[in-house]
Amino acid sequence: MKTDIEISQATKLAPITEVAEKIDLTFDDLELHGKYKAKIEFAALDRMKENPEGKLILVTSINPTPAGEGKSTVTVGLGDALNKIGKKAVIALREPSLGPVMGIKGGATGGGYAQVLPMEDINLHFTGDMHAITTANNALSALLDNHIHQGNELNIDARRVIWKRAVDLNDRELRFITVGLGGPINGVPREDGFDITVASEIMAILCLATGITDLKRRLSNIVIAYTFEREPVTVGDLRVEGALALVLKDALKPNLVQTIYQTPAFVHGGPFANIAHGCNSILATRAALHSGDYVVTEAGFGADLGAEKFLDIKVPNLEKAPDAIVIVATIRALKMHGGVPKTELSAENIDALTAGFSNLAKHISNMRKYGVPVVVAINEFISDTEKEITLLKELCEQENVKVELASVWEKGPDGGIDLAKTVVETIDTEESNYHSIFTHEDDDLTEKIETIVQEIYGGNDVIYTKKAQQQLASFKKYGWDRLPVCMAKSQYSLSDDPSKLGAPSDFDVTIRELVPKLGAGFIVALTGDVMTMPGLPKKPAALKMDVDEQGNAIGLF
Amino acid sequence: MKTDIEISQATKLAPITEVAEKIDLTFDDLELHGKYKAKIEFAALDRMKENPEGKLILVTSINPTPAGEGKSTVTVGLGDALNKIGKKAVIALREPSLGPVMGIKGGATGGGYAQVLPMEDINLHFTGDMHAITTANNALSALLDNHIHQGNELNIDARRVIWKRAVDLNDRELRFITVGLGGPINGVPREDGFDITVASEIMAILCLATGITDLKRRLSNIVIAYTFEREPVTVGDLRVEGALALVLKDALKPNLVQTIYQTPAFVHGGPFANIAHGCNSILATRAALHSGDYVVTEAGFGADLGAEKFLDIKVPNLEKAPDAIVIVATIRALKMHGGVPKTELSAENIDALTAGFSNLAKHISNMRKYGVPVVVAINEFISDTEKEITLLKELCEQENVKVELASVWEKGPDGGIDLAKTVVETIDTEESNYHSIFTHEDDDLTEKIETIVQEIYGGNDVIYTKKAQQQLASFKKYGWDRLPVCMAKSQYSLSDDPSKLGAPSDFDVTIRELVPKLGAGFIVALTGDVMTMPGLPKKPAALKMDVDEQGNAIGLF
Repeated sequence: MKTDIEISQATKLAPITEVAEKIDLTFDDLELHGKYKAKIEFAALDRMKENPEGKLILVTSINPTPAGEGKSTVTVGLGDALNKIGKKAVIALREPSLGPVMGIKGGATGGGYAQVLPMEDINLHFTGDMHAITTANNALSALLDNHIHQGNELNIDARRVIWKRAVDLNDRELRFITVGLGGPINGVPREDGFDITVASEIMAILCLATGITDLKRRLSNIVIAYTFEREPVTVGDLRVEGALALVLKDALKPNLVQTIYQTPAFVHGGPFANIAHGCNSILATRAALHSGDYVVTEAGFGADLGAEKFLDIKVPNLEKAPDAIVIVATIRALKMHGGVPKTELSAENIDALTAGFSNLAKHISNMRKYGVPVVVAINEFISDTEKEITLLKELCEQENVKVELASVWEKGPDGGIDLAKTVVETIDTEESNYHSIFTHEDDDLTEKIETIVQEIYGGNDVIYTKKAQQQLASFKKYGWDRLPVCMAKSQYSLSDDPSKLGAPSDFDVTIRELVPKLGAGFIVALTGDVMTMPGLPKKPAALKMDVDEQGNAIGLF
Repeated sequence: MKTDIEISQATKLAPITEVAEKIDLTFDDLELHGKYKAKIEFAALDRMKENPEGKLILVTSINPTPAGEGKSTVTVGLGDALNKIGKKAVIALREPSLGPVMGIKGGATGGGYAQVLPMEDINLHFTGDMHAITTANNALSALLDNHIHQGNELNIDARRVIWKRAVDLNDRELRFITVGLGGPINGVPREDGFDITVASEIMAILCLATGITDLKRRLSNIVIAYTFEREPVTVGDLRVEGALALVLKDALKPNLVQTIYQTPAFVHGGPFANIAHGCNSILATRAALHSGDYVVTEAGFGADLGAEKFLDIKVPNLEKAPDAIVIVATIRALKMHGGVPKTELSAENIDALTAGFSNLAKHISNMRKYGVPVVVAINEFISDTEKEITLLKELCEQENVKVELASVWEKGPDGGIDLAKTVVETIDTEESNYHSIFTHEDDDLTEKIETIVQEIYGGNDVIYTKKAQQQLASFKKYGWDRLPVCMAKSQYSLSDDPSKLGAPSDFDVTIRELVPKLGAGFIVALTGDVMTMPGLPKKPAALKMDVDEQGNAIGLF
């Protein structure tokens, strides 16, 4: 069996200009990055708005397990399969963070014969978007600290700086640090920390901005600190939104690549769904909607995180709701949710599958609460038995949900034809009546959090730490109490406890801290022990990476 | 008078493929980055080695002052002027760091009608080289700290980690920090600090490496820490040179851009000359040597720093010495060296010019010690008077050195014709007999430092702090005591005291600390108060930066 990178390196790619032609983009509409990657120029994005709008298919999944779900793989395979059955489909994905690439084997470019390419470029620096975001994030930190150091005209309380630095790596050592040591010429001593770039508010802003003007408006609104009088200080107060926008101007342009089967794929923006809003950029999704009759996109981690945020945060900004939602599950992962350890997943286990189905059932029920038609995709593994497949299909039928096997990893588009036909049929026959899950448009933060915890997670009460309670009171004073909420929660469980698999019930969720992200336009609620900077494992994937004399990647995946 | 960015934005650029054609590079030899920037593929670099080797012209300058010298401007203008007089010339420059761009107005792309373009791209992210270096640098830090955290098999003493993190910004707040706070799950507490990326050993390695294999060898040799037994620990011990080389594989390819007059320009690598070795990459300089009959290149800051390191560190690796050295001076700057404050530079001042000439005279004499013919270029300013110009020419003639006025900033190539002709004539008539300034090939560190301090700086004794003395003893034990030396010193003075202008005498130089850079292959000697992380000024240039809705930069310069 070939590895992902072997398949990638053996594939003959079309020049990206040819891929662009398929969606009526010319050479002048592109900013080339090598022969197989391009950014779309702003003028072309403007022109594309005149095109009709395609149907939107959101791919999400059950809660991830170490067994693997393959959401990106199914997203790519479904896009390829839709083209195979004669539809005009394009794909819209997030771009990977180098942190996990260096840490644990696995990327965000799909796998097997359902990949976006060139996978090694996309998984490394791609077109530099992550670097631009990291740079803008840290330029803001430097400018902020310099302001305090050089006289502090804005009267900023250095103990109440909330803007953190960022690096696109897994680096636990940088979670809690002190900066500005070494005496007066070396800055003002204070506590600080680094988040991973994908959790930076600037990443969220890049993904939500509709153009340069909106980008600057959002950057200007970022709250970076409080004064000694506890008044919020923004980027606008520091007058550096122009400089930050300048650093981000090219990163804001969506990237175009292709799948193994030359389906156009927009890969742009990459916030994690556990600690950020988990969706690719508005500009890329809109470009995709104006490029194809069907757009297949994904949101990060399980439907409790990525899809919830897609539906509650992204959709109102995108001004377009999904026409169908595909929930990806694997029999192996459901068996883990049913209590089987990773080492025993290859053995048939009907009881565990039945028990673990509760996780999938909960996500099906959750997605239906938004009024969008749902289809289940079983991402097939070699170890799946006939009996298990039959059972899973029956369980889905009991939930009255359409279900299809997908074997795009092994067979490419041919393995996704049934799924593609069912998704098209669903869109043709079932209307999407998207609506918010919140009772009132202007629910306050606690009402919104309670709704998400009870309706989506299946929990009981929301517990606020003393810190979070104080923050709720302040936020009310600042007029931030009716903003959307972006939950930061473990991806492994529907609850805030990663050890609770399946569909846990009878649990409370603890809100540890609230972080205002006024540029993104939401408040992040940190639950449980979730961290905004991951660490590396004992044996990082980096140990197996290499490059040959011609510059070809080795051991990347 | 138009600003640099206005001139840049008003220039009609040739597609970079056409510029490449001038030096016999085809579309397949290039990795395009937009329409006007490209990287040269490794296969093309190999093929170019068969071409004949051009003449090498090194442009350097007097010690910089706030009055401005315009070394990059003269480098670009001289390249354009050589083409204008019918020679086939190309340019090889360093790429700018975003730190100073955000901090103080001024970049490394020349000025007026002697610029490399597109200046806004080159001064911002360019082709991502700086970001790749920053990422490799910090990935190494994360992998090192993770190793210690996860059991510390190599027995690394966390108090003796010497590898620092890096960011391509001016950020004094990060000079001295503590990391790994917050308890056992958040890493091992220790002291750390960030250098600016251009001071990273990985930048030096990228600029000295002759290919991927040499890159890996050099990365592997980096000393990152010491064990509890005080034995050095290298990247090779950590087994991550492959991963770091993978992150750097594209950054290693030289970048090709053009001047306003479409002269091909290789802009690649950007170590500062005050805290690093100050020269662009070996691969780019070699590519340039195989592309043109004349290559105009520059080294950072004054001839005491950039040119000294070009001649003592780069030349042995490049295996090619300059055929001529051009020393750039301005009348304004020489008057500052003669004691005039910045506010009074526009007034004619014969005495100050005479006094300040001592700085230029010292650099002329220094460069001649290497056996290379020298030409002086006076970079003309509007405020220069007839009498001052005549005097400066006379003073040069007394030193028996050729001197030409250059007005390339105002007039482009037409303003550099005299200089170009004189440089060509010098190369045609005077032989370059490059030789080292060191008495013996195997001078030890103290002998080399003493030679540089006495012969180049004009100082008396070298004083070692206690720390430096202990390091000298350790380095002897490790067998590092005969490596080349890379001096880190204030750029403003020939001494290690930035307030000593002109040609100071009767001073000692203090070596504060020595830093082994075994991957780069040299030992950095930190003198005086020189810092490897700059700070921002009270009113950073960032405050005036902006971008319009179409993505055009505003206020960049």
